[in-house]
Amino acid sequence: MMKRITLAERPIGAPEEKNFRLEEIKIPKPKNGEVLVEIHYMSLDPYMRGRMDDGKSYAKPVEIGETMEGGAVGLVIASKSKIFNINDHVFGQLGWATHACAKDTELRKLDPTLAPITTSLGVLGMPGFTGWYGLTQLGRPQKGETLVVGAATGPVGSMVGQIAKSKGLRTIGVAGGAEKCMLAKEKFGFDHCIDHKAFADSREMKAFLQEVCPNGIDIYFENVAGKTLDAILPLMNRFGRIPVCGMVSWYNSVNSGASTEGTMDKLPKMWRSILIKQLSVTGFIISNHWDLYKRFLREVGPMLSSGDVAYQEHIIHGIENAPSAFAGLLEGQNLGKLIVKVN
Amino acid sequence: MMKRITLAERPIGAPEEKNFRLEEIKIPKPKNGEVLVEIHYMSLDPYMRGRMDDGKSYAKPVEIGETMEGGAVGLVIASKSKIFNINDHVFGQLGWATHACAKDTELRKLDPTLAPITTSLGVLGMPGFTGWYGLTQLGRPQKGETLVVGAATGPVGSMVGQIAKSKGLRTIGVAGGAEKCMLAKEKFGFDHCIDHKAFADSREMKAFLQEVCPNGIDIYFENVAGKTLDAILPLMNRFGRIPVCGMVSWYNSVNSGASTEGTMDKLPKMWRSILIKQLSVTGFIISNHWDLYKRFLREVGPMLSSGDVAYQEHIIHGIENAPSAFAGLLEGQNLGKLIVKVN
Repeated sequence: MMKRITLAERPIGAPEEKNFRLEEIKIPKPKNGEVLVEIHYMSLDPYMRGRMDDGKSYAKPVEIGETMEGGAVGLVIASKSKIFNINDHVFGQLGWATHACAKDTELRKLDPTLAPITTSLGVLGMPGFTGWYGLTQLGRPQKGETLVVGAATGPVGSMVGQIAKSKGLRTIGVAGGAEKCMLAKEKFGFDHCIDHKAFADSREMKAFLQEVCPNGIDIYFENVAGKTLDAILPLMNRFGRIPVCGMVSWYNSVNSGASTEGTMDKLPKMWRSILIKQLSVTGFIISNHWDLYKRFLREVGPMLSSGDVAYQEHIIHGIENAPSAFAGLLEGQNLGKLIVKVN
Repeated sequence: MMKRITLAERPIGAPEEKNFRLEEIKIPKPKNGEVLVEIHYMSLDPYMRGRMDDGKSYAKPVEIGETMEGGAVGLVIASKSKIFNINDHVFGQLGWATHACAKDTELRKLDPTLAPITTSLGVLGMPGFTGWYGLTQLGRPQKGETLVVGAATGPVGSMVGQIAKSKGLRTIGVAGGAEKCMLAKEKFGFDHCIDHKAFADSREMKAFLQEVCPNGIDIYFENVAGKTLDAILPLMNRFGRIPVCGMVSWYNSVNSGASTEGTMDKLPKMWRSILIKQLSVTGFIISNHWDLYKRFLREVGPMLSSGDVAYQEHIIHGIENAPSAFAGLLEGQNLGKLIVKVN
């Protein structure tokens, strides 16, 4: 028997445990061209909140009763594929489960001697690639410029900060709590890290940011939005760049109609900033850019081996704990890339 | 004696006649390196509303008591310059006045046999260049795509529409009133033109736009904002481009704190659209891009001569009528490029 977690009902606002269902089912058998994977680690990422909602987004929603979607790594334990053998390590979108059958064309083989397989979920996986892509392709970083990124200890923010630092930028992180801020500076080399919980409102936060960004902000890598966006927009320099890959602080509220913290009361202010400061604001969804993934690995893989890029993982144990860990992720309760060890 | 119009006081909301002062002063004499210009035509443009406000913008404000800023064309009637002779036609930022002295380095010589000198204020001047630059450099137009532009009969919108049409795009204009919509289609070749006054709200407008844009919208050239922006955003295609050069419908309200029509109640919706649709939103101020002006003239000048680019001018007479004409411009009362004949 295997376990999996399905979507029991669509959440209103923040997800709760009752929105998920833990099921025991028979382990499936691979068909021709498929393999059976024993999942060792599964990934929890903020984007999954979007998949729980019905309605138009960039990817189709998880249906009620379906296994929750997500990336995972594990071991091939049965194969009807010409590409993969038993005991191969693989990555794939295998879902919140202990086992899964998958087509061999949808899996990527991993070499566990190069890096721990968990890195394929974080620093060398989708989140790390997101940070690298957005910064290098849309942020157009120039030596001497100032960059700000939120969720600075997460797998996206920490990649953005470290790549920016390696290119000679001044890097300012934003994170929730003193522990994360310490980690951002000591492990990821941020010049400063600002605790957004220490400020009553975006005005206070702006005043503080102004002090640590004496030359303004050239790149704001947007992954959280909310109060941080409000505080940063007035400090953006002319010709500033804002790659937008997420808005975690709003994920639980946008679709529920709940009020959103720090939204700037009027859109015109923001539109005016874009015009007057001649900003480039560009949204991107990393799944449309896998063509650059090998280049990312060629560039960042060696930096990981040499220790020039650090990473932080937060591993919890047991698939049954995934729903509460996921809810905590959206509240910023994890420290580093959140991963569930399932086998 | 000469006449000029100064800023008497800063407007709150829409500008009124009392914000301006008509003065008679002595005609100044040119110093070394300067010429005296008898102004024939002066330009009225929406950006001037911004100059009337105090506060940070992309250009410094007009001070109280100073001549209102603006482009103008006229005849050199006295010269202490080695570059310009009496009877030369010139363009410069000469202000709202009947005469002005200016440094020869700040003037551009015009050849009135190539095109009427008024075209240097509109179709071949700053507004036309704004439309051409934003569309070609930021809009990245591709044959077969759909473009929407507001103020379709204005000098920016009509340029955008015509250049887009020449590149094989489907062009949809937005304008206020049946007369303008007719002009947009018949003179500027728009495939459709939508009368924004015909819709009670952005929802109605969106429904109509949807019909005339069956394949969605790839480029929205933003110069009006307001209700139009609201209606268009849901129809933008993936990887759409939004060059932002203005937001006329908000000019009178942004700085007054007044409520703004069609603002989308919350910023998050717009931020979410940028992310999910992977839009590129880029503000630009044309004064930073004069390096491409000659290329624009090389490309569009011949199209004007051959009749492939049409233009529409709305000329009023008498400098004393400039304030009311300017107030009307912000309300969309002009038909085509608004110009004041002053001498």
